[in-house]
Amino acid sequence: MTDLLYFEDLQPGQAFDLGSITVTREEIIGFAEEFDPQPFHLDDDAGEASLLGGLAASGWHTGSLVMRLLAANLLNRTSGRGSPGISKLQWKQPVFPGDTLTARAEILETKNLRTKPDLGIAIFRITATKQNDTKVIHWENPILFAKRDIA
Amino acid sequence: MTDLLYFEDLQPGQAFDLGSITVTREEIIGFAEEFDPQPFHLDDDAGEASLLGGLAASGWHTGSLVMRLLAANLLNRTSGRGSPGISKLQWKQPVFPGDTLTARAEILETKNLRTKPDLGIAIFRITATKQNDTKVIHWENPILFAKRDIA
Repeated sequence: MTDLLYFEDLQPGQAFDLGSITVTREEIIGFAEEFDPQPFHLDDDAGEASLLGGLAASGWHTGSLVMRLLAANLLNRTSGRGSPGISKLQWKQPVFPGDTLTARAEILETKNLRTKPDLGIAIFRITATKQNDTKVIHWENPILFAKRDIA
Repeated sequence: MTDLLYFEDLQPGQAFDLGSITVTREEIIGFAEEFDPQPFHLDDDAGEASLLGGLAASGWHTGSLVMRLLAANLLNRTSGRGSPGISKLQWKQPVFPGDTLTARAEILETKNLRTKPDLGIAIFRITATKQNDTKVIHWENPILFAKRDIA
């Protein structure tokens, strides 16, 4: 546990590679059946007739895939304590079966919390690109971290 | 198909009840294992020791559950064509096993799209509450709709 990153270790401008994840057709349809059953997330013909241009992942699925990379490859190596919300989320292009997403997290700002002196907050910008380097999704995410001196 | 809601049917101030959904312990852990493997989403002890106060759903899970209600109970009865993003998402309190979320969508604004005259955009505010009427999550979501006259 000694190599955990605490709030004191985080600075604006730091960036973290979060690795990559590939999504399958079965995963796209399975997620949509459970959480976003709009036709263009479920059916090839409906996808091709839509603005997406083909059967494409729910935006909530895309975000959740990137969340997996953020949690497994960064937050679980820190004193992260969760997040109060997200802002400025944009889906820049559809995610199709077989696409590989590569994600990155950059710290925009850090600040102390007046109400909870044992915690600080770091505002991250999370971005993911496809295998052809085009942008897929980005959002901003304030995340709480415990301080080393108090933890 | 004649009773679909098109862009012309949508006006600021309209609100739609989206129904309710209950989440189980198994679903919370299953989603977290796949998409958000932070300890407080996976384990009772870690949840109780966390700011959440108990094993609680990933925020992406909570949002996806509400997305299900939005898709199944509103968007699939409209000419909805997807969304470019979300903003101002806040998680107001944790979602625990057995909690029931009840959601609602309100239209804040509608506007035509200059670049795509066959589409309009409606900005929704999506909110969900728990069984005790306290707020769980809210966000704003611009959603594209086809126009009746052109569709």
